[in-house]
Amino acid sequence: MFKKILIANRGEIALRVIRTCKEMGIKTVAVYSKADEESLHVKFADEAVCIGPAPSSESYLKMSNIIAAAEITNADAIHPGYGFLSENAKFSRICDEHNIKFIGASPEMIERMGDKANAKSTMIAAGVPCVPGSEGVIPDFKTCLKVAKETGYPVMLKASAGGGGKGMRAVWKEEDLQDAWESARQESKAAFGNDDMYMEKLIEEPRHIEIQIVGDSNGRACHLSERDCSVQRRHQKLTEETPSPFMTDELREAMGTAAVKAAEYIKYEGAGTVEFLVDKHRNFYFMEMNTRIQVEHPITEQVIDFDLIREQIMVAAGIPISGKNYLPNLHSIECRINAEDPYNDFRPSPGRITTLHAPGGHGVRLDTHVYAGYSIPPNYDSMIAKLITTAQTREEAISKMKRALDEFVIEGIKTTIPFHRQLMDHPDYVAGNYTTAFMDTWKMNDPVDEE
Amino acid sequence: MFKKILIANRGEIALRVIRTCKEMGIKTVAVYSKADEESLHVKFADEAVCIGPAPSSESYLKMSNIIAAAEITNADAIHPGYGFLSENAKFSRICDEHNIKFIGASPEMIERMGDKANAKSTMIAAGVPCVPGSEGVIPDFKTCLKVAKETGYPVMLKASAGGGGKGMRAVWKEEDLQDAWESARQESKAAFGNDDMYMEKLIEEPRHIEIQIVGDSNGRACHLSERDCSVQRRHQKLTEETPSPFMTDELREAMGTAAVKAAEYIKYEGAGTVEFLVDKHRNFYFMEMNTRIQVEHPITEQVIDFDLIREQIMVAAGIPISGKNYLPNLHSIECRINAEDPYNDFRPSPGRITTLHAPGGHGVRLDTHVYAGYSIPPNYDSMIAKLITTAQTREEAISKMKRALDEFVIEGIKTTIPFHRQLMDHPDYVAGNYTTAFMDTWKMNDPVDEE
Repeated sequence: MFKKILIANRGEIALRVIRTCKEMGIKTVAVYSKADEESLHVKFADEAVCIGPAPSSESYLKMSNIIAAAEITNADAIHPGYGFLSENAKFSRICDEHNIKFIGASPEMIERMGDKANAKSTMIAAGVPCVPGSEGVIPDFKTCLKVAKETGYPVMLKASAGGGGKGMRAVWKEEDLQDAWESARQESKAAFGNDDMYMEKLIEEPRHIEIQIVGDSNGRACHLSERDCSVQRRHQKLTEETPSPFMTDELREAMGTAAVKAAEYIKYEGAGTVEFLVDKHRNFYFMEMNTRIQVEHPITEQVIDFDLIREQIMVAAGIPISGKNYLPNLHSIECRINAEDPYNDFRPSPGRITTLHAPGGHGVRLDTHVYAGYSIPPNYDSMIAKLITTAQTREEAISKMKRALDEFVIEGIKTTIPFHRQLMDHPDYVAGNYTTAFMDTWKMNDPVDEE
Repeated sequence: MFKKILIANRGEIALRVIRTCKEMGIKTVAVYSKADEESLHVKFADEAVCIGPAPSSESYLKMSNIIAAAEITNADAIHPGYGFLSENAKFSRICDEHNIKFIGASPEMIERMGDKANAKSTMIAAGVPCVPGSEGVIPDFKTCLKVAKETGYPVMLKASAGGGGKGMRAVWKEEDLQDAWESARQESKAAFGNDDMYMEKLIEEPRHIEIQIVGDSNGRACHLSERDCSVQRRHQKLTEETPSPFMTDELREAMGTAAVKAAEYIKYEGAGTVEFLVDKHRNFYFMEMNTRIQVEHPITEQVIDFDLIREQIMVAAGIPISGKNYLPNLHSIECRINAEDPYNDFRPSPGRITTLHAPGGHGVRLDTHVYAGYSIPPNYDSMIAKLITTAQTREEAISKMKRALDEFVIEGIKTTIPFHRQLMDHPDYVAGNYTTAFMDTWKMNDPVDEE
């Protein structure tokens, strides 16, 4: 087992990893930027090394400084958390070269699954359902017509060079295809100097459902059921739950099997997540694979009763997994509490927390790196806490979340607590009837004056 | 279901009950003494009524004031928590007379199980093992010899009128019996003016292991496994765990069956606890029954994944239980954090909490009514928080407790956190090798200066 792990991250996930290391009797090294001197991850680690000024590019993304910190402190492994360098093939390779175990995917694995086109062709080869469409670029309109027919309407025409929604057209019926083909090519040509087009089936108002997997060095993988992450705003997840209210036993079996197949095909080692889009008919399509721990991993931990960070460390140390799939016995919900003003377009609200009172009691878990008196630096992600409730049923988990949000006091900054509190009362959320389009239409109620 | 529940208690248990009521959609009424105006249970309840000055006898024990508060606020039920009026037959009867549901035992049940002699003879009739000994008073030494032989040495001679250890003699072998008989009678005569003696088997260095039971109005009962509460100081429990490290599957089956038999024999309704002494040969003996929720109920909740306060409320509302016994899947430990100085004979340390930082993360639960800025009144029990950790194994639950205790910051007063932190490293505790005699010999290490 590792003797000392350096955590190449900050915030709640750095603290999360330190906690498990402490419980496993492994020493920890925190790294921090000048802006994070007062962060709890610095206080709770056995050692702490400043790796640069506030900008991430000069600290948390600065590979040479992190490697130097690991060498100075004699750390034998690095846990990258999520974001920052967690899916950086170069960093994973540099760790290897320095004989420091990277607790995450190999450089080859990151390269293979990090490139979306690469990942998709790998998944097709593994027999995992992917969004159907053209194989690469469509040479002419005749082929376009044929591919659209084979794919089935609605389809999405996409510029190969595209981005930011430019050169994209959704087409619902054949008679509209030619207009779309021509206008999308023109737009793409104008925007990118290139009119190459490809096509994918349009998944309307999909669910975002992901499967947690763990693989070991023997090539064995298992799945730990799903998380429904459909409540998103501009592709940022806001709240997640497991089980998905949309899930059936058959669908879980099919998606779980597909995710395990994907992991075993690529001989995946460690904890990973296979993200799928699921349409209203419960067809599911591979979207991407994250070769790291996810923000929302605690809800899985709550319903399967074990520690995923511990699992990552064990697998990285070469300890084989049981290979057993886990099905959820309970229901768990996570609300991401961000330092943002939900009444003002979720504008970031950094600053000093003057008062903090944490909710507690039965079925309540709080993962946070902030405390009363802590100043949230403006340089990083605005997430300041993850509030997780767990109960026998979805209804009870929602009730628990409501009372925990009501108990949670954070003063001095704006937070998304009122957003989550309203969400938990929204009839569509309560009914489990939501897709990734949910936040496009919902407008929050005005703030209520406190009595 | 009840519409509004008055909580006739204070501190963490009042908050505990309020939380579950909120989750069930039941309105709550807090009652409080003048000393508790700033307590969280007052802030979190829907309504709050002051019931008198600080002394318990003029507030939390003042039945007429509590009943008046219930009538003014139209509460249809009263939850008594633990302590105070929770096992007061008169109060249970007064609630009945006012058509307010007492969420606890009936007056008859409290009277039956509250008197120890009564409870013991009831349990003998139910076929539950009790500490063997004489049936009532021993008329003469000849009988004494005979009873001792039947009971088996060691035995304890006890003065019927006894108390405070007076008139008691432990006897390990027959040749010492006569001396003990005579000196104990003399001592009893001198102290109480009465030399009536009875005899019980001496249980040496027993474990205190209790079984949680729930019974419903159909006369059905189930058990929710055990809690080991052997770590005590002057009969005050300090830390509890489930499963007991001393437990075997056979013993759990036998003790669980005995507890269910006891509950069904007396047609017990609600949540209750049957406390047993267990000797080193794993013989167990009925000690007493508590007809209320216990302080240490959360560890049971953690390993069976449901809410015992909810269960109490459901049963009180006449909803039948499933009748299924629950066996622990996980391991859970509770440390009682008291405002006491463990380096100074556990002397109470009331006062103002200047800083509070709660531990969190995976497997950590905190039940507390205190917060930064709160002043602990000197009038009541010194318990200010219950820290509970839960994991797959006992070893992991201990590791989690150590890191959670290390994270827990309470400034302004002394607490028992350092005591628990040392306990979690004690070789006998770590080995699960402790009895109720544990604290008689253990001396804490001196405080270590903080770096």
